[in-house]
Amino acid sequence: MTKTSSAKTNSGRFFEDYAVGDVLHHAVPRTVSGGERALYHALYPARHALYSSDEFARQSGLPKSPLDDLAAFHVVFGKTVPDVSLNAVANLGYAEGRWLLPVYEGDTLRSESEVIGVKQNSNGKSGVVYVRTRGLNQRDEVVMEYVRWVMVRKGDLDAPAPETVIPELNKIIPAEDLVIPEGLDFSDYDFGQAGEAHRWGDYQVGEMIDHVDGVTIEEAEHMLATRLWQNTAKVHFDATARPDGSRLIYGGHVISMARALSFNGLANAQMIVGLNGGAHANPCSSGMTVRAWSEVLGKAETSAPGVGAIRLRLVATSGAEPFTLKGDDGKYLPGVLLDLDYWALMPI
Amino acid sequence: MTKTSSAKTNSGRFFEDYAVGDVLHHAVPRTVSGGERALYHALYPARHALYSSDEFARQSGLPKSPLDDLAAFHVVFGKTVPDVSLNAVANLGYAEGRWLLPVYEGDTLRSESEVIGVKQNSNGKSGVVYVRTRGLNQRDEVVMEYVRWVMVRKGDLDAPAPETVIPELNKIIPAEDLVIPEGLDFSDYDFGQAGEAHRWGDYQVGEMIDHVDGVTIEEAEHMLATRLWQNTAKVHFDATARPDGSRLIYGGHVISMARALSFNGLANAQMIVGLNGGAHANPCSSGMTVRAWSEVLGKAETSAPGVGAIRLRLVATSGAEPFTLKGDDGKYLPGVLLDLDYWALMPI
Amino acid sequence: MTKTSSAKTNSGRFFEDYAVGDVLHHAVPRTVSGGERALYHALYPARHALYSSDEFARQSGLPKSPLDDLAAFHVVFGKTVPDVSLNAVANLGYAEGRWLLPVYEGDTLRSESEVIGVKQNSNGKSGVVYVRTRGLNQRDEVVMEYVRWVMVRKGDLDAPAPETVIPELNKIIPAEDLVIPEGLDFSDYDFGQAGEAHRWGDYQVGEMIDHVDGVTIEEAEHMLATRLWQNTAKVHFDATARPDGSRLIYGGHVISMARALSFNGLANAQMIVGLNGGAHANPCSSGMTVRAWSEVLGKAETSAPGVGAIRLRLVATSGAEPFTLKGDDGKYLPGVLLDLDYWALMPI
Repeated sequence: MTKTSSAKTNSGRFFEDYAVGDVLHHAVPRTVSGGERALYHALYPARHALYSSDEFARQSGLPKSPLDDLAAFHVVFGKTVPDVSLNAVANLGYAEGRWLLPVYEGDTLRSESEVIGVKQNSNGKSGVVYVRTRGLNQRDEVVMEYVRWVMVRKGDLDAPAPETVIPELNKIIPAEDLVIPEGLDFSDYDFGQAGEAHRWGDYQVGEMIDHVDGVTIEEAEHMLATRLWQNTAKVHFDATARPDGSRLIYGGHVISMARALSFNGLANAQMIVGLNGGAHANPCSSGMTVRAWSEVLGKAETSAPGVGAIRLRLVATSGAEPFTLKGDDGKYLPGVLLDLDYWALMPI
Repeated sequence: MTKTSSAKTNSGRFFEDYAVGDVLHHAVPRTVSGGERALYHALYPARHALYSSDEFARQSGLPKSPLDDLAAFHVVFGKTVPDVSLNAVANLGYAEGRWLLPVYEGDTLRSESEVIGVKQNSNGKSGVVYVRTRGLNQRDEVVMEYVRWVMVRKGDLDAPAPETVIPELNKIIPAEDLVIPEGLDFSDYDFGQAGEAHRWGDYQVGEMIDHVDGVTIEEAEHMLATRLWQNTAKVHFDATARPDGSRLIYGGHVISMARALSFNGLANAQMIVGLNGGAHANPCSSGMTVRAWSEVLGKAETSAPGVGAIRLRLVATSGAEPFTLKGDDGKYLPGVLLDLDYWALMPI
Repeated sequence: MTKTSSAKTNSGRFFEDYAVGDVLHHAVPRTVSGGERALYHALYPARHALYSSDEFARQSGLPKSPLDDLAAFHVVFGKTVPDVSLNAVANLGYAEGRWLLPVYEGDTLRSESEVIGVKQNSNGKSGVVYVRTRGLNQRDEVVMEYVRWVMVRKGDLDAPAPETVIPELNKIIPAEDLVIPEGLDFSDYDFGQAGEAHRWGDYQVGEMIDHVDGVTIEEAEHMLATRLWQNTAKVHFDATARPDGSRLIYGGHVISMARALSFNGLANAQMIVGLNGGAHANPCSSGMTVRAWSEVLGKAETSAPGVGAIRLRLVATSGAEPFTLKGDDGKYLPGVLLDLDYWALMPI
């Protein structure tokens, strides 16, 4: 019996492995249940009533509470990691994210990504890859989609640079392109049960909201979350993977934490339907106390009864003062962790 | 686009905001599932068979395992925090707690509280508020109720003192007022599967039980638990909220931990039906090793077949010797965390 | 009212309390749900598609995703702890483990163990006890079985030594004794969705696979896991129970962590059907970064369509180089935590 070392493990794709037009079918479909829903509530201070109460969801025209929109995003995103970002140097941005169908208990999600852009960096050692990712359910319906671009190392420095393709992306998703879940109706909305009285008409463009509360982050929690989404990037789990012995927290953990904290002031921003853009401004690690503030960036009417759309900037911080974002040099302040631009649905 | 800071966040109620007779309808109803049940078993060493096994519950006359009685309490309690204890200085006591209906997967709980007493403190800076809280399910049935009183800061020190009203409360719920779940029948009770042979007749009033086991508390665990109940009090999550940088552990976490530890010696004290009183004697923080002991305070017969009621003192400690409670000065010893007085149901 | 200390707590069995032929009916049956399944995915980086996706399971001939085989093992094992290993000095080995029926949501598991061997140690202070444990569902069907032997302290040093009985145990379960779940069919296996292209025919006996990834272990996580399986051994929870103040991590936590890490290189080793043997070579405690490697020890055909059996050595390490196991003295290297020998099912 001879012993031979095998090369069966996935070392991830490098920059030269991506070509515009490639479609990557990501592995490991996932069925979600009440367990994922309960865990989402244990991991984040999530209190939006539509996701907490089947009764509230039914009163809003849905069959029952869907999985939190960000949980659906994390499941779809997690599947892409082995194929898209295992050798990523940086997660550069998001655009054109849309939630197209609610995800319910018993649904099975899978993901696929189309390469829509590549650009080798001038140093010749890495490049930027743009992918449009779609999450699909067991009926092959697209439940969400988004564009992400990442900087990826080259594996073979001698590989020729591909022709540069940079996709044209909307800076902001036009309100008329947002998809409102079928049947959604806020005409009979119970503001008391939702937790706040402020309706769509009460928010002004330019208004800033300090969400006040903070959560000090623990290693065990972000690892539980990140594993739940089957995100395998080793920097999140392996304290020996980074020179300083710290674990880098999955950016999506910060998104969910900030969104949940934003309940206090935005309890009626119930459903997320669009992701216009987002930057993980600075890395997050355990021991930080995460806080959040929001800015109203826009408003739009929708065709659904009683439902308005609100465009929000959601900023997660650790140490930065509320409502401060960038320094005089135009760079994010060190205490800013996340700058996210999204569309949510609110009772008018 | 002008930027204006909004005042849409909830800063909580102050003492002068409560008037006897007010009814507070707490926000964010919650649907529970198998996820909450599994998490309860992951967070606490809970082993009472009625809550662990659907088969055991059916053999006891119930349709299946209910949610743990304390989990139901935590869900109901958590909803009251934003309206009752966000500005509380101290959680002073509980009384007249009764579990009226088991909670099952798929049930949606909400809470409401009636203000039944107020008394301004002589310093003029705070006062005591008494509320009777009820948890209701989606059929508007009351699943549990309890009285709690808290010390709350005044927001406006010039607000006039209200007329003092102190409710008359039973020190002990009379056994005949306890509500036994419909159909409960312990005549065919399987002591082997339950884990201990000791039945109601084997316990003597005055008997003391050392539950032996201990659990060293971690930050991540108490935060997961407290969030799961949507309890938002910032002292539990934000290490910067208290001068010493420690997080105060939700008192209910200590109750559940002690109750679960009490399995070892009280495995057959299956269902909690009454909460006579309780004091969080000293704060709990991470790193403490929690242990528990119990004292049999009373016994009563019930009308349900094979079912007896037992009144128990449950004491959680960290460092205090078993069976010690107060010092010569009548105050709780520093190592005593919890002193709870409750009624449970046992096979006779 | 006199206060008397009771002796109602379980102090566990000692060596002299076991006699060959005894059958122990372990307490606290457990119903599993989607909550246990979601928690398993949060606690371990588990990605085998058959357990992640109901659709993938159906395509493989099963009604839906079963509970992870190791989760079923942990539930069955956990119940035995109060009767078998509460006073154990060491967990010495496993043999003849077989998974006989998949466990699905809604199933209720209980355990029983038959004492099949005893041997007092020459020091007269302890002895080795062999038990064959069976896990049964609510239909009294055996879902799994395994032999375990542990070293247990004597409670009464004067108790006479029993007649030595050492059971004859298979070193390796013959492939023809493995039980393939009814209906399992890998003829239509989707390697893309499973995550790797390597099929049964691609693995060679003697082949070694480095699973590359690592997870740094946190206290909160192993305690959540161990409690979920209702394993009550105090060394896992009570930092004051061991002289050095560390908590000993449940060996099964290391098994599940290593198995989940082995996805990277063995994504198609879907179902575990046999446990030939296993040693917890060194204790694991928090702060360690666990990695894993595997060796192909054998292969066999099965009667199920498209299904092959593969025998694997799974080694968990913390600090030891991949593919190193024992030193010149024949003892496990200090950085080796686990050496497990099991049979899995793979698409041919």
